[in-house]
Amino acid sequence: MKKILNNPKDFVPEMLDGLLKAHPDQLAYAAGDVHCIVRADAPVQGKVALATGGGSGHLPVFLGYVGKGMLDGCAVGDVFQSPSADQMLEVTRRIHGGRGVLYIYGNYGGDIMNFDMAAEMAAMEDIEVRTVLVKDDVVSNADPEKRRGVAGMVFAFKCAGAKADLGGSLDEVEAVARKALANTRTMGVALTPCIVPQVGRPTFSLGENEMEMGMGIHGEPGVSRESLKAADEIAERMLAAVRSEVPLAAGDRAAVMVNGLGATPPEELYIVYRKVHDLLTADGVRVHRAYVGEYATSMEMAGCSLTVMKVDDELAALLDHPAKTPFFVQV
Amino acid sequence: MKKILNNPKDFVPEMLDGLLKAHPDQLAYAAGDVHCIVRADAPVQGKVALATGGGSGHLPVFLGYVGKGMLDGCAVGDVFQSPSADQMLEVTRRIHGGRGVLYIYGNYGGDIMNFDMAAEMAAMEDIEVRTVLVKDDVVSNADPEKRRGVAGMVFAFKCAGAKADLGGSLDEVEAVARKALANTRTMGVALTPCIVPQVGRPTFSLGENEMEMGMGIHGEPGVSRESLKAADEIAERMLAAVRSEVPLAAGDRAAVMVNGLGATPPEELYIVYRKVHDLLTADGVRVHRAYVGEYATSMEMAGCSLTVMKVDDELAALLDHPAKTPFFVQV
Repeated sequence: MKKILNNPKDFVPEMLDGLLKAHPDQLAYAAGDVHCIVRADAPVQGKVALATGGGSGHLPVFLGYVGKGMLDGCAVGDVFQSPSADQMLEVTRRIHGGRGVLYIYGNYGGDIMNFDMAAEMAAMEDIEVRTVLVKDDVVSNADPEKRRGVAGMVFAFKCAGAKADLGGSLDEVEAVARKALANTRTMGVALTPCIVPQVGRPTFSLGENEMEMGMGIHGEPGVSRESLKAADEIAERMLAAVRSEVPLAAGDRAAVMVNGLGATPPEELYIVYRKVHDLLTADGVRVHRAYVGEYATSMEMAGCSLTVMKVDDELAALLDHPAKTPFFVQV
Repeated sequence: MKKILNNPKDFVPEMLDGLLKAHPDQLAYAAGDVHCIVRADAPVQGKVALATGGGSGHLPVFLGYVGKGMLDGCAVGDVFQSPSADQMLEVTRRIHGGRGVLYIYGNYGGDIMNFDMAAEMAAMEDIEVRTVLVKDDVVSNADPEKRRGVAGMVFAFKCAGAKADLGGSLDEVEAVARKALANTRTMGVALTPCIVPQVGRPTFSLGENEMEMGMGIHGEPGVSRESLKAADEIAERMLAAVRSEVPLAAGDRAAVMVNGLGATPPEELYIVYRKVHDLLTADGVRVHRAYVGEYATSMEMAGCSLTVMKVDDELAALLDHPAKTPFFVQV
């Protein structure tokens, strides 16, 4: 296991300690627990608060989007493990600014159980909580309700966060999150596995010339294991899968994210973006904004994902709204 | 070779094509050659222009720092290869805004030969060019003049770019670049090699439990090959090497960059940052700004580097000045 770490059991708390020390003007933690990350200026009074959470190992997801214009707090679990309901409740208490809290997180069983429990406990303290689940991984299940949440959550954080920053009500912020996600789908491809520090072995194995289309960000099985294809073919197939559920016609606008899973260099991501851009442009679809880089990772996994969100005037304006977090700055 | 690409010979032009398509509001190219990247609004009249250049495979270095508040242009070579003197000249012509051009780039033979030739040709067209070489890799040679330039160049781009953005003269911008670099040193460690697309084999090999302290970003030999150490020890040794030439005493301020070489996850970089921060703080040194992420890479190489710049009021203010490039946004 070639990782730069100390004792594997300290991987997450030491990472959080480093993060808090690197960004003291932006981040703080609640309840004396570094797993309860909040904006340094939390609670922002009079603003709907947004929270997320989930396992570690996916930076910038999840906590990397805590900051002005995006999220107010994040409950952080161990690598690929859900944080506890108590941690989610502490984040909720600390960020509540009097207008309710919206949870946006991926559709994973442990997270759902704990976030639902936290929401119930918050309700007993008269904090209104709503929940929007992210299920953008288009090939992860035939049933849209059973799909996993992956990089598409960043568009939901961005648009709902902007709506809250602009003074939207809990109803309005929730509606924006749902609208963003209804228009967003993702598909990914993995070339190598990653290693969970406390396990020390790869999460799965792939042959020297194999890739897995549709693999999940924890190594969940994809739709096909096959020989590594050229970048253009990978781009075409990811885009076709995404467009099968995000109808885009001439004159439409889309936000596009080509996301690296960890070890894939930005050079390769731009080669993929080029093909996606050309295919969309050939169909008369305009790219409103392109995001190329690492937005939702699996530690040192090689591979990438493509996320497309169809945008109307409202989503486009919310996407353009400024944001500033340790991992995401837009002006 | 597990890379997402098409024909290896098209790796760089396709990457550049994707980059230009993703950032049309920020980047353009000169002389009909996508290897000559310039700011979309170049030339900025009345501003000293900054240019850099070098081989591909190091994103965000070099071209990722072209944008407002940093660089005006960049000549882009093939992977690990120098761009040509003609490409550098075309960039120089396109960005010159009437107040001269400053070249800032790494101390590599091919780049020096070509940049010097470009500067001579520019002089014949009455464009005044100055050159500042980056030699921050502290363990790469006992002779400071023979050292390689690595991630420390980003601090030079940032400070000199800010000075130019604020209206500084060519003398002043050059002086800032030299001052930033005189106060900046870097040391790195590599855990795995990378693969040049047109070669198809790793640049070197390291055992399953080996690391190489001081390795260069093209796989140049380091100072010691040894068993992989804990993150805290790696951090301590890199910081000691850097501090041996950047004297920092109680009350001093420093900018700190923990840079990932490509495949190393941000989680690990924050664990390293934590230790560096604690050691500096224990000595009464204040971290003025922390940069943790991928700033100068070697494609999919695993490992990291530590860069420290001692800052006074002038460098601190220049570091804080806003900047916006495709890979670096600071507000």
